Amino acid sequence: MSEFDNQFMRRAIELAEEGVASNVGGPFGAIVVYQNKIIGEGCNRVTSANDPTAHAEVVAIRQACTHLSHFQLHDCSIYTSCEPCPMCLGAIYWARPSRVYFGCTHADAAASGFDDHFIYDELQRDIAERSIPMENLLRSEALRVFELWKNKSDRKEY
Amino acid sequence: MSEFDNQFMRRAIELAEEGVASNVGGPFGAIVVYQNKIIGEGCNRVTSANDPTAHAEVVAIRQACTHLSHFQLHDCSIYTSCEPCPMCLGAIYWARPSRVYFGCTHADAAASGFDDHFIYDELQRDIAERSIPMENLLRSEALRVFELWKNKSDRKEY
Repeated sequence: MSEFDNQFMRRAIELAEEGVASNVGGPFGAIVVYQNKIIGEGCNRVTSANDPTAHAEVVAIRQACTHLSHFQLHDCSIYTSCEPCPMCLGAIYWARPSRVYFGCTHADAAASGFDDHFIYDELQRDIAERSIPMENLLRSEALRVFELWKNKSDRKEY
Repeated sequence: MSEFDNQFMRRAIELAEEGVASNVGGPFGAIVVYQNKIIGEGCNRVTSANDPTAHAEVVAIRQACTHLSHFQLHDCSIYTSCEPCPMCLGAIYWARPSRVYFGCTHADAAASGFDDHFIYDELQRDIAERSIPMENLLRSEALRVFELWKNKSDRKEY
């Protein structure tokens, strides 16, 4: 950990504070850093943007990808004021940054009313046992789209 | 399952087909239905929007929440052409719809080059063992934002 890392984490924490002060959303902030420069920033905007996916990490990842004009974050670091939830971890694995630094832990978040443990549990359950009913429907018709994809000569993989 | 359900799933599949045909992104489509009306639609836009979070379900959820002017999808159903990945499942649990219908399974997706199994595995690992290094940093400073939140009298919980 370098003094740079501390400075970047403090910016993520500052974004979280600003989001709380201005009623943008929950107490979370995140930044994306590439070559020692901040290329994406965000605070949680769930309640102000009416967007359940607008967690700080998602907001920062989207902004950084726009900046890079690319859908991945190779050689980037993410600094987030709190350990990412399963949705944000999924976004992070798709974005493929090199490293993630987090401030609070998910236990700290749970103690403040942001408990994401139920999502970790749900993801491990068989589909039939999940709290939100999930059913398979028209699989053979849906499979045809994958055939289209596989036969598409100019497909852009990711 | 009703004929309505089949029709809605066919719309999700159609969105996936359109996305492939127009080079918007991968072969995935999704819709959100409320009171038998489609209030959100989306196809995967990862490569065209340079947004790793722009999976069909996330796009449809965001549009539906904008339509409802709310950050949750109570009493809504989601129809998606493929079983949601962990990121999208996270988004679904935060959005809290009543039900999810999916076409292809995640095994079908993996067979077409979209393997999300590694994310399920990563989420179960201890932080120290994950493939993307994740480190705790400045926890005590970050915790102060949760104190601000807890002491905020006009906080909007979600």
